[in-house]
Amino acid sequence: MTTESDARDELIDLAADFYDQFAGGSIPEMTLPTRTKSNIEYDAESGVWTYGDRTSTRSANSVRGARKLLKAAYTIEFLANQLDEGRSSTLRELYYLSESWDNDEAQFSSQDESNDLVEDLEIVTGVTREDFHMRPEESGATLMGPLEIREQTRRGEREIHCQKDVGEGGYQIPNNPDMIEFLDDDIDFALAVETGGMRDRLVENGFDEAYDCLVIHLKGQPARATRRITKRVHDELDVPIAVFADGDPWSYRIYGSVAYGSIKSAHLSKYLATPEAEFVGIQPEDIVEYDLPADPLSDSDVNALESELEDPRFQTDYWEEQIELQLDIGKKSEQQSLASRGLDFVTDTYLPERLGEMGVI
Amino acid sequence: MTTESDARDELIDLAADFYDQFAGGSIPEMTLPTRTKSNIEYDAESGVWTYGDRTSTRSANSVRGARKLLKAAYTIEFLANQLDEGRSSTLRELYYLSESWDNDEAQFSSQDESNDLVEDLEIVTGVTREDFHMRPEESGATLMGPLEIREQTRRGEREIHCQKDVGEGGYQIPNNPDMIEFLDDDIDFALAVETGGMRDRLVENGFDEAYDCLVIHLKGQPARATRRITKRVHDELDVPIAVFADGDPWSYRIYGSVAYGSIKSAHLSKYLATPEAEFVGIQPEDIVEYDLPADPLSDSDVNALESELEDPRFQTDYWEEQIELQLDIGKKSEQQSLASRGLDFVTDTYLPERLGEMGVI
Repeated sequence: MTTESDARDELIDLAADFYDQFAGGSIPEMTLPTRTKSNIEYDAESGVWTYGDRTSTRSANSVRGARKLLKAAYTIEFLANQLDEGRSSTLRELYYLSESWDNDEAQFSSQDESNDLVEDLEIVTGVTREDFHMRPEESGATLMGPLEIREQTRRGEREIHCQKDVGEGGYQIPNNPDMIEFLDDDIDFALAVETGGMRDRLVENGFDEAYDCLVIHLKGQPARATRRITKRVHDELDVPIAVFADGDPWSYRIYGSVAYGSIKSAHLSKYLATPEAEFVGIQPEDIVEYDLPADPLSDSDVNALESELEDPRFQTDYWEEQIELQLDIGKKSEQQSLASRGLDFVTDTYLPERLGEMGVI
Repeated sequence: MTTESDARDELIDLAADFYDQFAGGSIPEMTLPTRTKSNIEYDAESGVWTYGDRTSTRSANSVRGARKLLKAAYTIEFLANQLDEGRSSTLRELYYLSESWDNDEAQFSSQDESNDLVEDLEIVTGVTREDFHMRPEESGATLMGPLEIREQTRRGEREIHCQKDVGEGGYQIPNNPDMIEFLDDDIDFALAVETGGMRDRLVENGFDEAYDCLVIHLKGQPARATRRITKRVHDELDVPIAVFADGDPWSYRIYGSVAYGSIKSAHLSKYLATPEAEFVGIQPEDIVEYDLPADPLSDSDVNALESELEDPRFQTDYWEEQIELQLDIGKKSEQQSLASRGLDFVTDTYLPERLGEMGVI
């Protein structure tokens, strides 16, 4: 975590670079890694995928480029003030706020533009959006398990046990999970679960208590805050992370964003990705082995699977075998399809078997 | 709230009716209100919209009808056992579970079919899905404000203050909010907020503390649990409810589902709807008055507004005026567009002005 004044300093340094370029008689510019699938590379040391060597330059040598740097300068000023005042804002608010800026040319024409600029600033300053105090829209993801945390809120500290001090809904992950300190835990492993229905099933069946498991609700494609806390649980509490999702290509991407990082946020892979996270299922193999209720793959499912075979992050023996099998059987299954064997099958049989095979329990 | 044994009795009574019809030599049938927009009526006594007098009959005099009643009988048995065992399940699990039933004809062919059947059973038994222990998929909606509750969880009671005992994410509303008891409060009114970004803004600006306001995060179209707790806050704590959403036809439907009930769940309007809830905005009038950043109405926006003008629930002077104005100006604005006046404008100016006009504060 970067402190507020460090984050502010990084921003001011960037503005100072523009100033120095002007003062030195050169045209101001900002250099960024090219953010495409073909420019992500495996970093063997950290085990995550990050941007490669190819770069793109934003230069003020065209009206379009100059306007981009102008917007960057206004945004830097806004963020620096926000950090000064200890406040925060959402990406959407930044977009609307730009309408109040005195220079019309500095206003954003779409939210995509302001979102992209904030990501650019993250990349060049090495400070995360959370440390600029920029909040995401919403998430609603939760934790449930034998973990006691201290959350630093604007209203003081809160100490919360994620089983004993929460309702059945669990503990709501805050927008910036670096405001959490882990106080005490009795966790053997964490299970990151895609759907709310399965999360509720595990909690009802007492899986978190029976196995000393922290249940992390991913809520579909996980927000950055959810990926960040998953990584912190792994690194700081030294426990394995298992991802439990549907058996379709979209859910493999959910696993991928937890384990490998996403293309959009490859500059943050070291902060967000947990390369040691393993995929529990639903594996294509499980669809066959447990004879699960399944739906036929749609054309877009097949395209997504084929695109995953081309994706450097999925080029492992395990994924190639599973994806080839899925294309072969032409079927996908949801995690809740395990209910076709009864409501306890997932906690009494499936998870103990799979987690046993994986060496997690 | 119906007790578990009452809910079970209602289900068994329904199965007994089928039995008696068979025994009496008549063809079993089940009569339900017709569930369309043209068959919802204003109930002057309760102030909510419920189903009218038109009914549809499911009779076993065709193979299709007989199969529907067979599925109902299997579902009744499953739900009765579930209540016996004090367990619960999701709608999706019920769909998959039917694959384990011994009679293939009783299995559901799609989740829509099982969802509809559960709603049918709610209507004929007068028991809510929550009291059958059927959970929705997920919601993630939260409360933040001066309210102390006691939640009955499977792991015992939890007493939680929705400001002092929660992190910045707030208190997660459980799937069945009737498991909550209100212990103590210092609430002057509740503000039900559509988006997470605005909910976070209000909490950051301390609006809940400054105005003794309970901030209810609707998370878009609110789940039943969110609408139920909103109604209970209104009825039991005797405080006004104000709905704060985007200024577009989809958000007016969000307001409508809080205040009037939805067509799909009109049988539950008395349980879920809060007819006294008022709309704060964004009103089309606000777009003009505060000169908010706006987007042009799309064709589907225009169609949705025109359909609202035809909807009996929106046929009030207020809504006709606002919707006509919106069609006239051809614009819509999001609630976060208030940030174009600065991050404090919503809590320092807009909400105090609007809530003052409405007599809420």
